[in-house]
Amino acid sequence: MRSQTMQFNNGIYVQSSASVVGPKEAEGPLKGCFDKSYDNLYCGEATWELAERKLMSEAIELCLQKANKKNEEIDFFLGGDLLNQNITASYVAREKEIPFFGLFNACSTSMEALTLASVLLDGGFAEHVVTAVSSHFATAERQFRYPTEFGGQKPSTAMYTVTGSGAAYVSKKKSKIRVESATVGKVVDLGVTSPFNMGAAMAPAAVQTIKTHLQDLRRKPEDYDAIVTGDLSRVGTPILKSLLFEEGIDIYNNHHDCGILIYSADQKVFSGGSGCACSAVVTFSRLFDELKKGELRRIFVVATGALLNPLMIQQNESIPCIAHGVSFQYEDDYSNR
Amino acid sequence: MRSQTMQFNNGIYVQSSASVVGPKEAEGPLKGCFDKSYDNLYCGEATWELAERKLMSEAIELCLQKANKKNEEIDFFLGGDLLNQNITASYVAREKEIPFFGLFNACSTSMEALTLASVLLDGGFAEHVVTAVSSHFATAERQFRYPTEFGGQKPSTAMYTVTGSGAAYVSKKKSKIRVESATVGKVVDLGVTSPFNMGAAMAPAAVQTIKTHLQDLRRKPEDYDAIVTGDLSRVGTPILKSLLFEEGIDIYNNHHDCGILIYSADQKVFSGGSGCACSAVVTFSRLFDELKKGELRRIFVVATGALLNPLMIQQNESIPCIAHGVSFQYEDDYSNR
Repeated sequence: MRSQTMQFNNGIYVQSSASVVGPKEAEGPLKGCFDKSYDNLYCGEATWELAERKLMSEAIELCLQKANKKNEEIDFFLGGDLLNQNITASYVAREKEIPFFGLFNACSTSMEALTLASVLLDGGFAEHVVTAVSSHFATAERQFRYPTEFGGQKPSTAMYTVTGSGAAYVSKKKSKIRVESATVGKVVDLGVTSPFNMGAAMAPAAVQTIKTHLQDLRRKPEDYDAIVTGDLSRVGTPILKSLLFEEGIDIYNNHHDCGILIYSADQKVFSGGSGCACSAVVTFSRLFDELKKGELRRIFVVATGALLNPLMIQQNESIPCIAHGVSFQYEDDYSNR
Repeated sequence: MRSQTMQFNNGIYVQSSASVVGPKEAEGPLKGCFDKSYDNLYCGEATWELAERKLMSEAIELCLQKANKKNEEIDFFLGGDLLNQNITASYVAREKEIPFFGLFNACSTSMEALTLASVLLDGGFAEHVVTAVSSHFATAERQFRYPTEFGGQKPSTAMYTVTGSGAAYVSKKKSKIRVESATVGKVVDLGVTSPFNMGAAMAPAAVQTIKTHLQDLRRKPEDYDAIVTGDLSRVGTPILKSLLFEEGIDIYNNHHDCGILIYSADQKVFSGGSGCACSAVVTFSRLFDELKKGELRRIFVVATGALLNPLMIQQNESIPCIAHGVSFQYEDDYSNR
């Protein structure tokens, strides 16, 4: 029988990670956790697209610096973003000169990349792999919705795209964070047609992936200190919890959502954060910090993606969604090696 | 030292493949090779985007039919296309309900997908994997260049996007076509800024991948019956050959280009074919047919991708390019097993 869940039994470890963010994220509750931030959406560049590129480039640079690795020592770079034709990742790959796999699964690309990086390492096809994803409020806004200057009103179900980039460097060298397993999502579509209600659109995909993950590994929610979704935010989160509860899976006690964690309640972000960077910058900063200290011992990060395209919305299509999940485990015997 | 080339020594085989194409391709010299064709760009659908989706859906359906496999028996679907946010592949993944990895490396996605499919199989993370890519003349034209109704004039260096989709099903079961190795490309940029001259833009990426492949495996061009590029066409092909010749690598005798093979000289296609489907429909039909018969014994297919985005062109950026290569080998001891 087909299993959507892979277990990495040969030891795949996160060596280092880094997060670089924009102004809104730097003012939020996780401000002390990020490696670098900018107080302006342009980040010192001439265009928003160049700003997003800078965020990803710097996230990779800082990530590799922490592990004392150079670009030329890295076998593969797996990355993606939300811009048409993945241009942020492609231009960063040009600059870094690392052999490149371009990926796109919208905001679930962070965990798609870590899954495939782990597969490459586990099979012995690589020794050092870096992954990175990015998003940017202003580049996403004008591409997916309306021109920024238009000043369109939004409903409260809308989400605020996180400006930032997260990078992670993985290899087989033992560290405190082990990549334990990955569950690859199927595309799920509940019929939501509004790009201003992606939390509701994505919740069923997260349900499918969490349910499948627990079944495949014969685990219960309590086997995780935290089950963390990428960007369901305040609208999608209650839908996720109640849909899972109906299936007999209770995650009310240990669920968190990166889109809720990254902003405070008084920041004007509608229902919360979204974007490729949302799950990445939260997981690769705060969550990995807590894993390294053993404050979290096992977490399941489920990055959710709305496979949204403005032309399809205009053609009256609904929004297909996907969720990829990766579990990380604290390795407490690290000090003994 | 980093090697960009992976060898699949545990035996990865192409079980079946299928190609579905549009009217121009069906009138070309390979007309007898494709599994299905349409005489109209709409393919019986209301929009070009729906037509492209139908092409990919049918390519997968025909491919799996040939191997007598059902969607639910397939572990993973790896796919991509040229449309913003990979929508063709995403909507097809919704329909097929196969766990999905969305990929984007422009027209090199065909070989990126086969590479990652082989990695998943070799590492034991999957038993049955299907890959598919697509492109469509009309969806690409209006997205990347000008509205079709505008009727803009094009220079002779322009390329004609292939309408079609190619799918391949790979597993570890022995067959006549073995996936032998893969060379993952780096992003290369020669500084070409015109979306009407992609052949020239992509040639250096193909040079880099072919050169690296031969070095990594200590091989010579003569070790291949054919070295086949995806879509350099009449402009990029002479550039590729002469650049390699300057490096001491002579492929004048055994090079072919899918963008030249797919159309005849009297078809009005500017310098030749391009698009994700170009390398896929030619490789998965004609080339695989010849491999199965042993008429070709070892080939290296180098799919080239221009990581093009109209907004970047407007911002005066040049076009980053990439090339991923996969070598296929005829297994003549097949009948003995």
